[in-house]
Amino acid sequence: MTGGSRVAILSDKSASSLGVHSSDRIRIKFGDREMIVIANIAEYYPKNRIGLYKETTSALGVNEDETVSVQLAPLPESLFNVRAKLRGERLREGDLVTIVKDVVEQHLSSAEIAAFLTALSINGLSASENEALSRAMVATGKTLSFGKDPILDKHSVGGIPGDKTSMLVVPIVAAAGYTIPKTSSRAITSPAGTADRVETLCPVNLGIDEIKTVVEKTGGCLVWGGALELAPADDLFIQVEYPLGIDPMLLPSILSKKKAMGATHVAVDIPTGMGAKIKTRTGAYTLASDFVDLGKRLGLTIQCALTFGDQPLGCGIGPALEAREALVTLMGGGPADLRDKAVSLAGMLFEMVGVENGQAKAEDMIDSGRAEAKLREIIAAQGGKPKVQPDDLPVGPEFAEVKSSSSGKVIYLSTDDIVRVAREAGAPKEKGAGLILHSKLGQTVHKDSVLFEIYAERSSKLSSALELANQLSPVVLTKKPAEKMVLDQVPEKFAHEKEFSIDR
Amino acid sequence: MTGGSRVAILSDKSASSLGVHSSDRIRIKFGDREMIVIANIAEYYPKNRIGLYKETTSALGVNEDETVSVQLAPLPESLFNVRAKLRGERLREGDLVTIVKDVVEQHLSSAEIAAFLTALSINGLSASENEALSRAMVATGKTLSFGKDPILDKHSVGGIPGDKTSMLVVPIVAAAGYTIPKTSSRAITSPAGTADRVETLCPVNLGIDEIKTVVEKTGGCLVWGGALELAPADDLFIQVEYPLGIDPMLLPSILSKKKAMGATHVAVDIPTGMGAKIKTRTGAYTLASDFVDLGKRLGLTIQCALTFGDQPLGCGIGPALEAREALVTLMGGGPADLRDKAVSLAGMLFEMVGVENGQAKAEDMIDSGRAEAKLREIIAAQGGKPKVQPDDLPVGPEFAEVKSSSSGKVIYLSTDDIVRVAREAGAPKEKGAGLILHSKLGQTVHKDSVLFEIYAERSSKLSSALELANQLSPVVLTKKPAEKMVLDQVPEKFAHEKEFSIDR
Repeated sequence: MTGGSRVAILSDKSASSLGVHSSDRIRIKFGDREMIVIANIAEYYPKNRIGLYKETTSALGVNEDETVSVQLAPLPESLFNVRAKLRGERLREGDLVTIVKDVVEQHLSSAEIAAFLTALSINGLSASENEALSRAMVATGKTLSFGKDPILDKHSVGGIPGDKTSMLVVPIVAAAGYTIPKTSSRAITSPAGTADRVETLCPVNLGIDEIKTVVEKTGGCLVWGGALELAPADDLFIQVEYPLGIDPMLLPSILSKKKAMGATHVAVDIPTGMGAKIKTRTGAYTLASDFVDLGKRLGLTIQCALTFGDQPLGCGIGPALEAREALVTLMGGGPADLRDKAVSLAGMLFEMVGVENGQAKAEDMIDSGRAEAKLREIIAAQGGKPKVQPDDLPVGPEFAEVKSSSSGKVIYLSTDDIVRVAREAGAPKEKGAGLILHSKLGQTVHKDSVLFEIYAERSSKLSSALELANQLSPVVLTKKPAEKMVLDQVPEKFAHEKEFSIDR
Repeated sequence: MTGGSRVAILSDKSASSLGVHSSDRIRIKFGDREMIVIANIAEYYPKNRIGLYKETTSALGVNEDETVSVQLAPLPESLFNVRAKLRGERLREGDLVTIVKDVVEQHLSSAEIAAFLTALSINGLSASENEALSRAMVATGKTLSFGKDPILDKHSVGGIPGDKTSMLVVPIVAAAGYTIPKTSSRAITSPAGTADRVETLCPVNLGIDEIKTVVEKTGGCLVWGGALELAPADDLFIQVEYPLGIDPMLLPSILSKKKAMGATHVAVDIPTGMGAKIKTRTGAYTLASDFVDLGKRLGLTIQCALTFGDQPLGCGIGPALEAREALVTLMGGGPADLRDKAVSLAGMLFEMVGVENGQAKAEDMIDSGRAEAKLREIIAAQGGKPKVQPDDLPVGPEFAEVKSSSSGKVIYLSTDDIVRVAREAGAPKEKGAGLILHSKLGQTVHKDSVLFEIYAERSSKLSSALELANQLSPVVLTKKPAEKMVLDQVPEKFAHEKEFSIDR
């Protein structure tokens, strides 16, 4: 609960006798201990009582029905820095450090954090603000060191469904003898995050010491980063950003975590296109150069790949379906676009650390079976079954085909709609749920061709996903747009879709 | 507690098994009742328990240890409108209505409200956004009707200490036979709000029916508006704005409350100058024309007065000291600036409803004793002692003089510093605390002349106020600036002072 433990509840009568208004800070004293908390005023709260969270009462060593002394305290310095940002002022490194520290120590309320993030979202961040925020987020969290150089890493800014590239890049890179300690997120708004996919093969919720052991043994890992407290400020920022649909701290958020993991060389994937978070080439190039610049400031070597983002990657969408596909691709099969993306990104990383013809090396890791063997090693080290076969991963059991009602070429695949259908089917919560695409951009389909299959763990989910699929028709054939030139009518309201993505 | 009752606490484990993230909405069902609340995820909360506020459990009719069913619910429409505003989009009337409604019904969290207000503060509001917000705030609150026309009102955008003009304008206008139902605020950041001042004479915390009775009997009232739920959305907005130091909704906030009170003609006082909220003439003219325009859109006749805002009004500062001064001025004495401001504003109101030479009429109301008599009538109707004399109002009992250490003319009076000293002395909480100014702009003072007196209810407060006064030296004589041309040093940090004012 954001800022939860640093909040105290007072009745309006107590508050007014103390001269305290909602969001004012109060100093609570008990014996020789004291604590400053944020006042929350509740109309019907009993007078002369104060409501404290367990964290606060234990810090003060006070029990229920004991008496504490309460007085108005000054507002924190960080809040004045937030106010300066709201007025459009530039903040210096020290100012941003006070904010990040007070976010982590819960001295700022979620409303105050939201205002700060909104101002950043509207006004943007300067290069030095990005740097200061990144450094402050690293400094307020845990860090890892493997005592080696280089430490490689890979990150996707995300946004296209079915992107299971990390599950291939990590074993390819580690198979070549490099160190790549990869942390990933779970899905928030997408049908699967890398952590959700990998979790169908082995545990991903490892502690920092366990991660060190796995990486020292295998050269790589595929773990969930969410509970590692690598950059706890960022986790709190994301919590506040999520309902607001804003993401102003994208760069410091990503790079602070890489830095905390000890990375020295990072390949950043920027999917670009209608189906991705970044819609235009211009936007992608700007973001890429911002990444490279911020990397330099933080002592990280960064290269970015602008990748095709008009449609999902591969065919499987949903945790288990994607894990199956990743495994098949490492075993030499799988869809061409997934293999191409994985060897390109792994190859880029190889070349960043001095390997010539990196992509050929990456291909070789797959073709020789070494990447597959490495993934199995990592699965074993993380506590999974190393001999797992793609078909061992349970999908469905409910499934249905969605067929084309006409013939033509696929000219548009709505990734937003595909995400909605996959989530309606139960992904990412139900790991066997999702979609398999049978038709992708440019492909010719006939009447009654299967466009995609839907998998679900429950028949009720299957039918609601099917219904949504029929309503949305995410796969668009050549003829359709010509028949329907009006995209929407104004002032008829645009549908508000939940298309904001903050998965990392 | 903002959004308090519509929040539910879940453990991270329960949340993840429901696919719920912090700030997601959840639907809670018990029997045939249901309610949508905002999910707050707490790490150490017991699994399979849900923490609900009393308001929620009574609405659902559920008792502790009974079982409710919980599922993920869609985000409210209003939140998508908030997001659109964060992206810089224009909102239509209907969009703003959903936001205001959901603020009142607590369907938006304080973080979401803060983001909305921050975006408004940075991007500004269009005339139609101001109108839509005002109307929505009136529509979601209580309204009064006196079945008469005209209904007069007066408002100050505030910011200068010692401004007790309303305590004179109301009886002057009512004495002339007009209706002027005035609601006022209490101080938040100032040493006294009108409600605090009047409360030294009579109760101000009246209900809507009591207000109607007082106004029908006397033609006027001087009551606290804070608990009347006239525009409850505004009260919630102000709570969130207060720690952030922003005030984007100034116009709709003020005019929605006037509209709810049934006003038809409003005189708006815009103190302009170094000591006021509005620092420049340009700013004041812009605000004035925005007031007039928004008034037209809402069917209110508005005239604005740009008033001298470089120093406090009158000499008394602090609830009782100001009430004394108001009473003295209605009795024919008092400082000239206070009398001038009161008869000017009352005169403006008279002319707005067709009276010729309004100021003369206002002067006459004072000189004839009718305004004084009317104030005593209002005091009696609100439950106070009508025969109260200025000296009956307790001030002090601790007091001290602050003397000049040199001679010269007063060229600057820091209102911010005067506010700080008065508050340090105990105002507004301690009603007898405050300041009496003995020197104002342009006045010649000699070495050891009394610059001001400080009053306090407790000697500890008096000494800390005295200490602060010596440190701040709020009264500046001609010689001083010439001696000290460097105002501040950069990069030495500017002092962050709590100079933001949101008192209405």
